[in-house]
Amino acid sequence: MRLKLTIAYSGTDFAGWQIQPATDTVQERIEKALAEVAKVPVRLHGSGRTDAGVHALGQVAHFDAPDHLTMNPFNWVPALNTKLPPTIRITECEEVAADFHARFSALAKTYTYHLSLAPILPPFLAKRAWHIPRQLNPDDLREALAFYLGTHDFRAFSANRGNETADTDYLRTITRSDFEQIPEGYLLTFTGNGFLYKMVRFLTGAAVQASQGFLRQDDLYNLLHSPTEIPPTGQTHPLCAPADGLTLLEVNYDNLAS
Amino acid sequence: MRLKLTIAYSGTDFAGWQIQPATDTVQERIEKALAEVAKVPVRLHGSGRTDAGVHALGQVAHFDAPDHLTMNPFNWVPALNTKLPPTIRITECEEVAADFHARFSALAKTYTYHLSLAPILPPFLAKRAWHIPRQLNPDDLREALAFYLGTHDFRAFSANRGNETADTDYLRTITRSDFEQIPEGYLLTFTGNGFLYKMVRFLTGAAVQASQGFLRQDDLYNLLHSPTEIPPTGQTHPLCAPADGLTLLEVNYDNLAS
Repeated sequence: MRLKLTIAYSGTDFAGWQIQPATDTVQERIEKALAEVAKVPVRLHGSGRTDAGVHALGQVAHFDAPDHLTMNPFNWVPALNTKLPPTIRITECEEVAADFHARFSALAKTYTYHLSLAPILPPFLAKRAWHIPRQLNPDDLREALAFYLGTHDFRAFSANRGNETADTDYLRTITRSDFEQIPEGYLLTFTGNGFLYKMVRFLTGAAVQASQGFLRQDDLYNLLHSPTEIPPTGQTHPLCAPADGLTLLEVNYDNLAS
Repeated sequence: MRLKLTIAYSGTDFAGWQIQPATDTVQERIEKALAEVAKVPVRLHGSGRTDAGVHALGQVAHFDAPDHLTMNPFNWVPALNTKLPPTIRITECEEVAADFHARFSALAKTYTYHLSLAPILPPFLAKRAWHIPRQLNPDDLREALAFYLGTHDFRAFSANRGNETADTDYLRTITRSDFEQIPEGYLLTFTGNGFLYKMVRFLTGAAVQASQGFLRQDDLYNLLHSPTEIPPTGQTHPLCAPADGLTLLEVNYDNLAS
């Protein structure tokens, strides 16, 4: 039986989603919990990686429950949560078709990004928001975000992962890119059919720079329409916003698949 | 020059407010930052201790700035914050009268307590709320909280600190004790002229038990009016709520003093 998990986590305590040697990752924690329940190793397939420090409210993953387990899908939720730290919570478990795949069946993803303009960042937002003490112009922010809508070659808004080839496809379609005002800050929302490595952080960083007068409309235009090279990797790239404010809000699938 | 600091912190990473050997405490962190700025040791006096895991949005402390420092009080805020972890923030610094004392001049304190009734506690509320999966009756909660109003001997709602004597005064006056509904939970608010050790956690725990039918009105009456002994120390006392949901919201002083 193939099961789909919806997962929320605080990224602060983990080295991202994906299992890597000698680090504490969300995928590894959940695979360990699955193995404890199933008594056999279980492989978990996520909708995609999230970087170290990136949060999730609606990450999705699937696994195949061993045949000997006749547990109701619903019962996996408390069974796993009791074996996970409180900063990782399984919020849903449901049966899906045998050909459902958390990554390949995904039609769209939505991320939010929390900007805090508080004069002093409250301690509870440490590692959960990007603190920008400098004011920004909300009209310019809105305009920059609207600029991303549609299908573009976003290579100028991504970092090199190391496995790119001449055939790597950098075209992505953004269907939502806007913000709402929240107390002492802004919550940006991005929906797209997929996102390149660190792309939401680049979209955010560039929009913030535009809203502070450091980038103009034609700079953004050039980045989107004459993408000659991928910016170097690293949080220190001037266009790349920190991981802290980023949350994977949800992953959308065709109703038939789930 | 005597200066009054207002301080916010997430209690999760610290062993409480007060300096203790071989532990990481908020007071020690701030005294170290003060010494770095002042270049001499500086003693910081808090309005009172908060236990390990207890949060603060408006803790207050005072110190005497060394005479050689001619810094504007306002400039202490960024000077200290750059030397503190992001989970401790100085939010205000102002000059006060030479006889102001953060502890002895305090007229009232207000605490909040966050109860979460979410089916699954969101990862961002881990260590910030008391997760009560069992439903409670809001009318009984309101009634129990109102019961605390006024002046009572609260020894049945406190834990032994070890320095109690025959003359220890357990009378305290509570001027606010109520709650508001928040998404998937309740935020309790308590204001009083002072609180005994762990008192807010006992008030909360007893009110929750009353709202779940485990304690009746006359049980609360007996605890308040026939307090024969102090309950044993420890989080495992059935009336003592966990530290997680507790926040010191503010400390009030006479306007003339500050």
